[in-house]
Amino acid sequence: MKFSQLILQLKADPLEANQNSLGSNPHLDPDLTGAAPVEAAPPGTLSYIEGGKFAAQISTTTASALILPQHEPFQIQATQRGIAWISVAAPRLMFAQAIALFYTPFHPAPGIHPTAVIDPTATIGAGAAVGAHVVIQAGVKLGDGICIHPNVVIYPNVQIGDRTLLHANCVIHERTQIGADCVIHSGAAIGSEGFGFVPTSQGWVKMQQSGYTVLEDKVEVGCNSAIDRPAVGETRIARDTKLDNLVHIAHNCYIGEGCALAAQVGLAGGVKTGKGVILGGQVGAANLTYIGDRAQAGAKAGLHGNVAAGAVMMGNPATPYKTFLKSSAIYNRLPEMQQSMKQMQQKLEELQRQIQALEGKADVLCDD
Amino acid sequence: MKFSQLILQLKADPLEANQNSLGSNPHLDPDLTGAAPVEAAPPGTLSYIEGGKFAAQISTTTASALILPQHEPFQIQATQRGIAWISVAAPRLMFAQAIALFYTPFHPAPGIHPTAVIDPTATIGAGAAVGAHVVIQAGVKLGDGICIHPNVVIYPNVQIGDRTLLHANCVIHERTQIGADCVIHSGAAIGSEGFGFVPTSQGWVKMQQSGYTVLEDKVEVGCNSAIDRPAVGETRIARDTKLDNLVHIAHNCYIGEGCALAAQVGLAGGVKTGKGVILGGQVGAANLTYIGDRAQAGAKAGLHGNVAAGAVMMGNPATPYKTFLKSSAIYNRLPEMQQSMKQMQQKLEELQRQIQALEGKADVLCDD
Amino acid sequence: MKFSQLILQLKADPLEANQNSLGSNPHLDPDLTGAAPVEAAPPGTLSYIEGGKFAAQISTTTASALILPQHEPFQIQATQRGIAWISVAAPRLMFAQAIALFYTPFHPAPGIHPTAVIDPTATIGAGAAVGAHVVIQAGVKLGDGICIHPNVVIYPNVQIGDRTLLHANCVIHERTQIGADCVIHSGAAIGSEGFGFVPTSQGWVKMQQSGYTVLEDKVEVGCNSAIDRPAVGETRIARDTKLDNLVHIAHNCYIGEGCALAAQVGLAGGVKTGKGVILGGQVGAANLTYIGDRAQAGAKAGLHGNVAAGAVMMGNPATPYKTFLKSSAIYNRLPEMQQSMKQMQQKLEELQRQIQALEGKADVLCDD
Repeated sequence: MKFSQLILQLKADPLEANQNSLGSNPHLDPDLTGAAPVEAAPPGTLSYIEGGKFAAQISTTTASALILPQHEPFQIQATQRGIAWISVAAPRLMFAQAIALFYTPFHPAPGIHPTAVIDPTATIGAGAAVGAHVVIQAGVKLGDGICIHPNVVIYPNVQIGDRTLLHANCVIHERTQIGADCVIHSGAAIGSEGFGFVPTSQGWVKMQQSGYTVLEDKVEVGCNSAIDRPAVGETRIARDTKLDNLVHIAHNCYIGEGCALAAQVGLAGGVKTGKGVILGGQVGAANLTYIGDRAQAGAKAGLHGNVAAGAVMMGNPATPYKTFLKSSAIYNRLPEMQQSMKQMQQKLEELQRQIQALEGKADVLCDD
Repeated sequence: MKFSQLILQLKADPLEANQNSLGSNPHLDPDLTGAAPVEAAPPGTLSYIEGGKFAAQISTTTASALILPQHEPFQIQATQRGIAWISVAAPRLMFAQAIALFYTPFHPAPGIHPTAVIDPTATIGAGAAVGAHVVIQAGVKLGDGICIHPNVVIYPNVQIGDRTLLHANCVIHERTQIGADCVIHSGAAIGSEGFGFVPTSQGWVKMQQSGYTVLEDKVEVGCNSAIDRPAVGETRIARDTKLDNLVHIAHNCYIGEGCALAAQVGLAGGVKTGKGVILGGQVGAANLTYIGDRAQAGAKAGLHGNVAAGAVMMGNPATPYKTFLKSSAIYNRLPEMQQSMKQMQQKLEELQRQIQALEGKADVLCDD
Repeated sequence: MKFSQLILQLKADPLEANQNSLGSNPHLDPDLTGAAPVEAAPPGTLSYIEGGKFAAQISTTTASALILPQHEPFQIQATQRGIAWISVAAPRLMFAQAIALFYTPFHPAPGIHPTAVIDPTATIGAGAAVGAHVVIQAGVKLGDGICIHPNVVIYPNVQIGDRTLLHANCVIHERTQIGADCVIHSGAAIGSEGFGFVPTSQGWVKMQQSGYTVLEDKVEVGCNSAIDRPAVGETRIARDTKLDNLVHIAHNCYIGEGCALAAQVGLAGGVKTGKGVILGGQVGAANLTYIGDRAQAGAKAGLHGNVAAGAVMMGNPATPYKTFLKSSAIYNRLPEMQQSMKQMQQKLEELQRQIQALEGKADVLCDD
């Protein structure tokens, strides 16, 4: 595809970010065969520069076209190297859309594989693809255009909305409700039993997990993640929230709309979040923590108390990131700080001795 | 079911905690249709109050009946709002038992699905349920009333006790021994190869993992957790121990009786624990750590050395929680502490100058 | 097998480490039936002592033979207790090889199970074992002697080299390339979609993951680990690198040759490592971190910046381990340090008062 055609198609996208390009260099119009990372882009490919330290790649990349941020020196540099470019407010967003023009994800053809085991009480919408060895149990209701990869198991009375995609070997437990346009990645377990045991003198008494789990529309759940259902009530992931691999969401959590939880995040029972919350990798949140709208937590943060809307937290126990950055820098100098304290203590004692000597002299003088 | 009938059934339970109720309000006897979380309990449901900050919910809940702790003001408040109640020593325990009266967990009917692939040398006890596409290999011995959900794979020579339940897509590796009344949740891998490689100048040499893994009776293992077998000897989880989702137990670990390990805990090779140990989410323990009876570790703790019986540890490297709480509070004020030190150093220099000035004066006076 | 025969076989191994034994006690030559951990070795078994705190076991073990380090007192002690021994530079390495003489891992017989669903365009090498309910999709190319356990799913256009072993229920996604002699453990997901979403005012826009994942020869991936493919370009694990259970490798990572990543490690997008890097359990590395050759990070370390070759890092944010050990020791004494500072401040004020008193006296004297 010609670069100019690609640009026309991208501009046809209704997303506002693509409309306000600062222009491009019209005399260059290479044929493009794909998209590539800027540091390893073969000739004939499109790449992008988000800015920052990546900008140095403009002088070395072998990409034939670049999506650039709105920064004139980058444009001049690209033109000088014979690289076609377009300059936009959100290069990464436009690049995401460009990839989709070159690449069609694998999607199995509609139809139900003969080895799938489907309970006669289950209903499956039009145009569904159900893979080999899938098991769909009693009372399950699946929407139109749903895609279920091989070896998925769906327990009884699950409901799944239109166009939702279940990758291989994931497991959807009883009574789970999954919305439309969701993606559940390989090996994820949704609606599994919450970890509920009451200690008694005769050992742990199991709390039956009679609740259910809800994933609203456009939710993604990463590989081998687990989202538990509660003893009573529900666990809910609101629309457009994305979970990475190996995430644990305990019983009775509520994750608000448009959040993103990076890999290996773990939320204990009853954690609630507002909208647009972003949690870095390996973040943990304690029982019943509330995390306000648009709050963020850096990788490995431990949230033991409520987090205000918009706060950016780091560390364990987590504190505002500015405090954490200062404190962690000092932490690494604690041995020097301890040394300074010893020196100050010695100095104090020395001054004390000098003062006593002076007092002695003063007494002598006063005695005169 | 009438509230009064429910209470009668609960009191019939042999668990001591239910016997010593402080009474209830007999004039209220609502019909109950289920159990619900107190903050979202529809009329006609039972809920519970454990105490603490949840107590405020008594004044707002729409539950028709509550299990209360033994605290008279709560009883009066509930009565005034027309809520039936019973007051007991352990409300959460009674609530757990009440759920079980309203809710029957999904359990597949006994029988072996025709798509299951079972080696002729395997033996399966009476009343077993073996789901679709299950694979049971040579020499496997399964107890009575066992329940194996679809797509489970059992490697050769595994033994599993009566009534144990294996959820979908979990994998039980060769020679693993699982007791009675265990629950293995979806996607868990039990008895997989330990991570044993010896460094040499020609690269890693694999240590064959010839040992085996034992889960005693009443053990639960959460979704996508992994319990490795060792090179030699055994990995063992003692009876009534519960593991949450995404837990990693390395080769040669021994987890004592009645422990609870929250989600994403990771134990390195050869970690041993006493009885009743409780580890919070994302806790890690280093190679060969010993954790004494009833010790606890807060979420994210890193246990690098042995932990005494009954100790409560936090932080990384973990320290007793009182120390951690104090130290972490000061950690966040390290910038102020550093500032104070600078001021003290300036003050010291100023005092030094004042003393020198005084010494000068004294010398002058003495010279007089 | 006689101990003497075992030694002969071990010495026949080309690995250099076995050649330079310091000798053994020839008059003892027990029959050995297996290998065992030294603290629980029945008579008739072989065990080993690596040194350090394990050496005390020489005086209590019931093993009939020991592989010892080159330390004469250990040899004398073993001989006195009637234990046959051999003394070598790398006891653990020789023990690893000894296990392999006693133990043959389970390996299914070659052949394709009739319940496997294999696309007609897939090719499978000679001597392959393909288990029950395996699904192999279009365009897949599998090498000779490959072993695929039950319920594995292989998406289209995957290539896998000779003798590679895929344990039950793992999933290999589209276009993944896996080398020869690899082991993928149960439930692992390889080549799954990277976590790529671009924030916009209309919500997250998904970045299609058009790249692919490469595992070179002799790579091992632990149970329920996940290795993502990128939007563009590749994610690559170089040869002889070993990953433990529940590890997360994000899109565009490059892990160098001969590395070892312990359980629950998480690497964010674009992390690159040199050769021979060792990461402890639960270590995390932030986006685009570079970790130099032979660098190491202790359990739970958080790598937020580049790590120099050979560095040994601990803590979060990670620092060189010597700094971390000192700082973390002081961290636990921060309350005392704070107390000392208060006392110093009081002392400073007291000295100030004393100096003022002296100045008063001096003024009086000077006035005289």
